[in-house]
Amino acid sequence: MSILVELASRSKEIGGVRVYKKNVERVLSALLRSGDFWEVVDMSDLPVPAASGIVKALVERGMVFIDEEENIRLTQKGLDLVKELGIGAYRDYVCSACEGRGIPFYAELEFYREFLQVTKDRPKAIRDYDQGSVTPETTVARVLFMDSRGDIENKDVLVLGAEDDLTGLAVALWRKARSVLIVDIDQRLIDFDNRIFKELGIDNAVARVWDLRNPFPQDILGRYDVFVSDPPETLPAFRAFIGRGIATLKEEGGVGYFGLTLRDSSVFRWRDFQVSLTTEFGVAITDIVQDFNTYITWDYHQETKAAQVAPVKRQPQGVWYRSAWYRIEALPGFRRWNEPISDDVFYLDEEGSTT
Amino acid sequence: MSILVELASRSKEIGGVRVYKKNVERVLSALLRSGDFWEVVDMSDLPVPAASGIVKALVERGMVFIDEEENIRLTQKGLDLVKELGIGAYRDYVCSACEGRGIPFYAELEFYREFLQVTKDRPKAIRDYDQGSVTPETTVARVLFMDSRGDIENKDVLVLGAEDDLTGLAVALWRKARSVLIVDIDQRLIDFDNRIFKELGIDNAVARVWDLRNPFPQDILGRYDVFVSDPPETLPAFRAFIGRGIATLKEEGGVGYFGLTLRDSSVFRWRDFQVSLTTEFGVAITDIVQDFNTYITWDYHQETKAAQVAPVKRQPQGVWYRSAWYRIEALPGFRRWNEPISDDVFYLDEEGSTT
Repeated sequence: MSILVELASRSKEIGGVRVYKKNVERVLSALLRSGDFWEVVDMSDLPVPAASGIVKALVERGMVFIDEEENIRLTQKGLDLVKELGIGAYRDYVCSACEGRGIPFYAELEFYREFLQVTKDRPKAIRDYDQGSVTPETTVARVLFMDSRGDIENKDVLVLGAEDDLTGLAVALWRKARSVLIVDIDQRLIDFDNRIFKELGIDNAVARVWDLRNPFPQDILGRYDVFVSDPPETLPAFRAFIGRGIATLKEEGGVGYFGLTLRDSSVFRWRDFQVSLTTEFGVAITDIVQDFNTYITWDYHQETKAAQVAPVKRQPQGVWYRSAWYRIEALPGFRRWNEPISDDVFYLDEEGSTT
Repeated sequence: MSILVELASRSKEIGGVRVYKKNVERVLSALLRSGDFWEVVDMSDLPVPAASGIVKALVERGMVFIDEEENIRLTQKGLDLVKELGIGAYRDYVCSACEGRGIPFYAELEFYREFLQVTKDRPKAIRDYDQGSVTPETTVARVLFMDSRGDIENKDVLVLGAEDDLTGLAVALWRKARSVLIVDIDQRLIDFDNRIFKELGIDNAVARVWDLRNPFPQDILGRYDVFVSDPPETLPAFRAFIGRGIATLKEEGGVGYFGLTLRDSSVFRWRDFQVSLTTEFGVAITDIVQDFNTYITWDYHQETKAAQVAPVKRQPQGVWYRSAWYRIEALPGFRRWNEPISDDVFYLDEEGSTT
């Protein structure tokens, strides 16, 4: 058995999540670039428990050590290994203009400024609802992305369960949608949005409190052209957010947008999501843009399972949590799903850790 | 029945391919921006027969007319319709730095220059094999994209059936792969690559002729870490290129890259491809970057079905053909497919038209 396979197997035992050889390679490659655990998670595109399991397995085998400043450093044995395996330092070529999104937020600078101005006293992300806001640049780029696909102008848009990002507010501010409905469990966000709409005289947008574990009422089903969400990455939450999102679409050609991350779910789980989307729900995936959504590290980081399972106590120094931006299109015969969901494993499972 | 549904239904009759309401909307939106048919195809993300069917249906209904310079123009009736429906002009916000790829080709300028220099007398795209080369900027961005995911350094890379793009040559020129094998049906490209490898003393790369309708020999199966391809968009060709590509992967964690376009296949067919990838082949899709691959209009354009079904005779004036860049990852239990393929419908079906 090769050393990488052995390391993968041990990492899996320690982390309690699926890991394969390639994951170990990518952590080693990241460690040639940075000793910061959270940057390593980011560069290796892994769930926190997986990256942590790999680092701990490497420590066990004497390949890396953690120094007094909590930097993870390769030992001579570790350096010999990466040399022997021909693993090079992580290198990314991400576009500095658009931050890799393909759509630069500054393409509509006045809109960006207005969004910043309007949201300067936005509610802070809180742990109760697995919140973690994306950067304002991300939110604005989402709107421009959607508009460039013809998915806002004169459309009925529903934003469900992700309003900590204020995407619904941004879509309404863009002033091209026919109507905008925002549903979220957090009364603070709903009040915030409704207050802004009132102040600015935006009368085609409204926000209301809803717990997505409950089925949608009839007046929301089959009424929208486009939905936007940002679900937790458990399978039950995926159904509650995306299944219900699809259920709100009027007809074939309806569109959904959402973020999915590899920091809280593995590529194994992604396949499950993709099978569910294409076979069970009857939609096609038109876009998956990795690292489109950049998250501001939440204040409650130290209380999360991520902080507990990490091999270091040091907090993230900058952005480390990103998610991919999915766009889906409902095809003829698509399925509307609107069942109740139990509380169990709604936010957290073995791969997730940032709640 | 709404006018859009009626138009979609008539477009479907004329074009002989699936069309729904949203497609008609997007063509109308594109027509508010350009009268050039090929630009309209590009902006509306549709197969040529679908876009053509829609334009012809709009002409029939007196919504558009084709002027003496073969510009497609909205009539007053058409303008009234778009106003009534609230359809706005197509607007894209694509990043001008990276051309929307998220990875700018100029991040490694010396490499880009070397690639241009080495390939300045490259073989021209010919019709026999459905060739159509991507721009050199695309090819270079592909290499940087792959390298940023750890998919080149010290890897065994196979490029199959798409060497008119010279992606295999570029990967070899990047000089980080452990080995590069290029297989293509076109002897001219194979000779070109092998000559360059010899001239530059690149001894870990080799090109050989292979017709992908035939199963791969044993010495290629299960031997590669990464494959790259750019299949025609028929289901049989997808199997021959992508199924066989997956069959060459050594193990789980193996990676595939390929282009898929919405100009020669619909979003309906994309769902079929995605179901096949995730269920039959057992891979996860990690990336779908729309319009990553930009193609140089082929010299044989006038001989294609696309030119025949188009509502105008005027040739494309610039880039109009793009494809999305897919990345997939093989998961435990992935399936190797290596059956023979018949000649029937290999290159062309009802949605495809550019062969």
